[in-house]
Amino acid sequence: MNGNMKAIVKHHRGPGAQLQEVPIPEISEDEVLIKVKATSICGTDVHIYNWDEWSASRVHPPYVFGHEFSGEVVEVGEIVSNYQPGDYVSAETHLICGHCPQCLVGQYHICENTKIIGVDTQGCFAEYVALPASNLWRNPADMPSDIASIQEPMGNAVHTVLNGEVAGMSVAVIGCGPIGLMAAGVAKAAGASQVLAIDLNPYRLELAKEMGATTIIHAGEQDPVDEARRLTNGHGVDVICEMSGHPVAMDQGFKMVTNGGRVSILSLPTQPVTLDVTNDIVFKGITVQGITGRKMYETWQQVSRLLHSGQVNVEPMITHHLSLAEFEKGFQLMNEGKCGKVVLHP
Amino acid sequence: MNGNMKAIVKHHRGPGAQLQEVPIPEISEDEVLIKVKATSICGTDVHIYNWDEWSASRVHPPYVFGHEFSGEVVEVGEIVSNYQPGDYVSAETHLICGHCPQCLVGQYHICENTKIIGVDTQGCFAEYVALPASNLWRNPADMPSDIASIQEPMGNAVHTVLNGEVAGMSVAVIGCGPIGLMAAGVAKAAGASQVLAIDLNPYRLELAKEMGATTIIHAGEQDPVDEARRLTNGHGVDVICEMSGHPVAMDQGFKMVTNGGRVSILSLPTQPVTLDVTNDIVFKGITVQGITGRKMYETWQQVSRLLHSGQVNVEPMITHHLSLAEFEKGFQLMNEGKCGKVVLHP
Amino acid sequence: MNGNMKAIVKHHRGPGAQLQEVPIPEISEDEVLIKVKATSICGTDVHIYNWDEWSASRVHPPYVFGHEFSGEVVEVGEIVSNYQPGDYVSAETHLICGHCPQCLVGQYHICENTKIIGVDTQGCFAEYVALPASNLWRNPADMPSDIASIQEPMGNAVHTVLNGEVAGMSVAVIGCGPIGLMAAGVAKAAGASQVLAIDLNPYRLELAKEMGATTIIHAGEQDPVDEARRLTNGHGVDVICEMSGHPVAMDQGFKMVTNGGRVSILSLPTQPVTLDVTNDIVFKGITVQGITGRKMYETWQQVSRLLHSGQVNVEPMITHHLSLAEFEKGFQLMNEGKCGKVVLHP
Amino acid sequence: MNGNMKAIVKHHRGPGAQLQEVPIPEISEDEVLIKVKATSICGTDVHIYNWDEWSASRVHPPYVFGHEFSGEVVEVGEIVSNYQPGDYVSAETHLICGHCPQCLVGQYHICENTKIIGVDTQGCFAEYVALPASNLWRNPADMPSDIASIQEPMGNAVHTVLNGEVAGMSVAVIGCGPIGLMAAGVAKAAGASQVLAIDLNPYRLELAKEMGATTIIHAGEQDPVDEARRLTNGHGVDVICEMSGHPVAMDQGFKMVTNGGRVSILSLPTQPVTLDVTNDIVFKGITVQGITGRKMYETWQQVSRLLHSGQVNVEPMITHHLSLAEFEKGFQLMNEGKCGKVVLHP
Repeated sequence: MNGNMKAIVKHHRGPGAQLQEVPIPEISEDEVLIKVKATSICGTDVHIYNWDEWSASRVHPPYVFGHEFSGEVVEVGEIVSNYQPGDYVSAETHLICGHCPQCLVGQYHICENTKIIGVDTQGCFAEYVALPASNLWRNPADMPSDIASIQEPMGNAVHTVLNGEVAGMSVAVIGCGPIGLMAAGVAKAAGASQVLAIDLNPYRLELAKEMGATTIIHAGEQDPVDEARRLTNGHGVDVICEMSGHPVAMDQGFKMVTNGGRVSILSLPTQPVTLDVTNDIVFKGITVQGITGRKMYETWQQVSRLLHSGQVNVEPMITHHLSLAEFEKGFQLMNEGKCGKVVLHP
Repeated sequence: MNGNMKAIVKHHRGPGAQLQEVPIPEISEDEVLIKVKATSICGTDVHIYNWDEWSASRVHPPYVFGHEFSGEVVEVGEIVSNYQPGDYVSAETHLICGHCPQCLVGQYHICENTKIIGVDTQGCFAEYVALPASNLWRNPADMPSDIASIQEPMGNAVHTVLNGEVAGMSVAVIGCGPIGLMAAGVAKAAGASQVLAIDLNPYRLELAKEMGATTIIHAGEQDPVDEARRLTNGHGVDVICEMSGHPVAMDQGFKMVTNGGRVSILSLPTQPVTLDVTNDIVFKGITVQGITGRKMYETWQQVSRLLHSGQVNVEPMITHHLSLAEFEKGFQLMNEGKCGKVVLHP
Repeated sequence: MNGNMKAIVKHHRGPGAQLQEVPIPEISEDEVLIKVKATSICGTDVHIYNWDEWSASRVHPPYVFGHEFSGEVVEVGEIVSNYQPGDYVSAETHLICGHCPQCLVGQYHICENTKIIGVDTQGCFAEYVALPASNLWRNPADMPSDIASIQEPMGNAVHTVLNGEVAGMSVAVIGCGPIGLMAAGVAKAAGASQVLAIDLNPYRLELAKEMGATTIIHAGEQDPVDEARRLTNGHGVDVICEMSGHPVAMDQGFKMVTNGGRVSILSLPTQPVTLDVTNDIVFKGITVQGITGRKMYETWQQVSRLLHSGQVNVEPMITHHLSLAEFEKGFQLMNEGKCGKVVLHP
Repeated sequence: MNGNMKAIVKHHRGPGAQLQEVPIPEISEDEVLIKVKATSICGTDVHIYNWDEWSASRVHPPYVFGHEFSGEVVEVGEIVSNYQPGDYVSAETHLICGHCPQCLVGQYHICENTKIIGVDTQGCFAEYVALPASNLWRNPADMPSDIASIQEPMGNAVHTVLNGEVAGMSVAVIGCGPIGLMAAGVAKAAGASQVLAIDLNPYRLELAKEMGATTIIHAGEQDPVDEARRLTNGHGVDVICEMSGHPVAMDQGFKMVTNGGRVSILSLPTQPVTLDVTNDIVFKGITVQGITGRKMYETWQQVSRLLHSGQVNVEPMITHHLSLAEFEKGFQLMNEGKCGKVVLHP
């Protein structure tokens, strides 16, 4: 497809971004071109927008960023056989090698050579995006475009929460950004008997309640460890979903987990973390899991079904709908924490 | 405690039972005496009442039968330290040896030397029951006595459904007796995206719907295999909970399960079952699980929490409340399949 | 590559096969051409050679059969990037679709649309074979060609034995054909405390002993169930690897497994099997697994490492080396059960 | 049994211990009296002997310490039914409560109220020891007393190594004290394709080789991370058994583990440990396990069978046999690291 399109371009090595007219991307033989219906802002996009240390070391402006979306296939490459124009899709954002030991055993999400769409390649904050057919996920026709767009981050939440038993268990979600909010909803849908949501932001704690948290804990007003222990008869919480990235909060997670419990860490602390390995890991006999990405495509199947069956309702946490041109307002909301998920509509 | 009590006695080797005055049981040093608040009728009790082949080979009249109950501790043996009069309890019905290989690895529910309360020992269809303290389960003070009573059979449902992944999966419950009805509720609570309930009894199918089934299939009017495949885009169902004990229904379960799926069998078919091992087990690469009893006491913890948190609501399937004296009506309802769970109140 | 090659051709719809000159296969853009160094005879090949009911319904003569081999890449298709001439390879024989629900979750071995090399496509009983690059497995340079050839069936053994815990457990291998023999070796290498090998063929029982069986049981001279129970202090065997396909032997496996044990079935009984589901599956609380193919490529990695590290030594069960022209002798040995594995060298 | 016995008494709050005559312990109704045949020195005993900070805060001299042993039952309490004089036994050293949430689900090794024999109660460095019958483990008659004595620490090794898949995997044992040495043997017996043993002590590295390590790495002479990566084609090690307790070594373990790998920590670092959670846990998608004690009694069963079947031979690492009176020499050897396991014979 020829012509130009509107796109949010990370235009220089510094804060900010620009809405620009750029050429519609060309596709190679194994790719498809997708007309974007909805695209959502991830925390990673905020890092790139703000231009932090990590962004400066990783991305190469000028380029189109963004990686969460849903849209319609409008063109397919020559050797693409299982997609055709009109298909309604979203996409996994990890581009994997297929040959490393992890890929060989089907653990694609921890491929040694992963590239990320919108970080290492052109992204989807645009009217069109070109992607390998092998990364697409087919959406049910009746799934709203904003909900289809946030399946990728919801995959992080599902991957974290469902990486062990949940039904009849107490679950604490530490950090109630958008993924934490979805994690609360997933834990509730999967049969958790208690869902504790912990954060410093009252706005997001309220959203957590709407998503299914049975108790919200404002970590600035209550001691989360004391409160979590009190709510579990002194025994501690069965499952900790660490989504804050804050060393203090992370340590609190290790303090509140019960003997034999599970701590699943999705967050990416920017500093090394000091842990009391002897008392909080070994004597407790707990399991700690590093969680990255989504299982390809087991997690996508779970996400799609949890959403489509109505088991998880994400509407309360999709708080803002903006046009592509209003992207700066979206990033401002994200930086202020005054939002759940922000969706942009090209 | 001295004196007599009312009890339903399996009085002879033949059909029926009698309400009799019998001595309140004496407790030994490791036992407790419990005043029964509610007791419920299990399918096993119906077999004993009807006096089928299995009962004739197993039980020794005259004795008090019944094994599901809730009640209040009124007396404790000398070496019982962790219970005291006033405690509100139910009980696990498997009496285990503690020394066989299964007990040594904590798999008490498959103890080689299991005895069953109310089958091999005196039961709880009575005003009082004496039991080893080690078999008690403590109930939350605010749990209604009828709900506390049916925790034991709900344990069968929970053990079956939660013996593998459920969230985001399709689950078929074959056989909608009381345990099947609870299984439907558990599957829904644990995040199943589809819960198919299959039976020949329209009354129980309606109860299944109330319990959380997303689709009910009348096996006499629709082909359950065709219908299950249609509802899963031709791929088959992820998890089969076999609770019918009928060879035809069981075979249908193996036909409708998807490649790589799970068939968990709680039912006890009275005849050998003929299976197409090659096509329905091996080529499909499925897992078949025999489920007996409840994990002691992991399952009890799950049951208690699922009920107490409100994740599972069993009220729709507790259809009848009767006095102990009305027990014959209860057995009649069970024999006719015109009930969910029948609770007797001494 | 142009020219002709020698190949064993299933030439007609009836017993037997012929050594013929046929064209060297042409490769498509995603395939490689491999010069075969060693190829081994599988039970499936014997079915095709003998022309049984299954073969008559599945294969389409004339074609080259055979699917176990090792060899050297001599030519690669245009879009093949990760193999080049000179690479030493074997191949997974399941050709999978990549799009069904099982493929989407990485369970390729139970793909709904599997085709099998040498059954549904041209095979490797030849000087050359053309295969998709995506099905190749890279061999260590110093692995002998006969050992590299039998990795595929050893994958069946490894998939069966290692599909659950083995270390410190008792394992019974029922049926000591080549895969059963390898299973005995794998169980021993994985730390089984007892490895019982059961068969009716004294020659193969002797091979089982050489492979690592700690006890051999001639099922015609001893009652395998009695003997297995005696050897396990009456408790039964922890893990049953069913590789006989015989209904009586399979039933014996279910009778000898301990409560809570595992029965992993790789065999393909030609008739429906009648099981005592109540007593042998449900009350025992066992797990039954259907095993098909090899996990792609987790099993291949295990096989390669178990062989290359010397943990499993398969030399005792590679009993015959023949030229391609001597294939009829190989099939005769297989039909008579007077061999372990028969390797043909083109 | 009346009379006195010889025992090693931790006699005061300071370094050292004394061989004293003390009364043979009396047993209560649920205990047995055991005549000790062999008792072995654990690292914990060395801490108590040396009187470090931990000992000063935990133990209450004067008392008999020691907790690893084998011996013969000579007297049983009134309510003990499953042991009798003449039985040959060892014992689990965790005394558990039976009522906490972990005990209720069979996770006795992480009981919230654990007491340890020889630390919190009278121990077995003596001619006789009194213990609850529920903590005994029955030994095969033909197991030598020194080997039976070291089953308890071997249980730590088995619990660590076998807490996930091992067959066909690379395993690194960091820290080659007695438990590390046994871990190397267990990994080899369980089918590991590579067993890397890492330490600073050449004497113990040699013992590791004898126990089954395929490669030994002197951490003072080679960079363990570089070496481990080199030996695994740059991909890293599948399973790390951390048994050093040293922060630097522990961090190296996290650096050398492969994506998706397992780090099982048995050691008890005396200081908090700083970890790169983002890069070494989250992005790698690894699992970290805290390991304490032994699964009761699943691990004991594994240990007994691995030893009795000959799958693990611990003789190379039982380097010293001394009389009870020579205990000071034993502690000196342990402090100098010039031994494997030291066994005392009363």
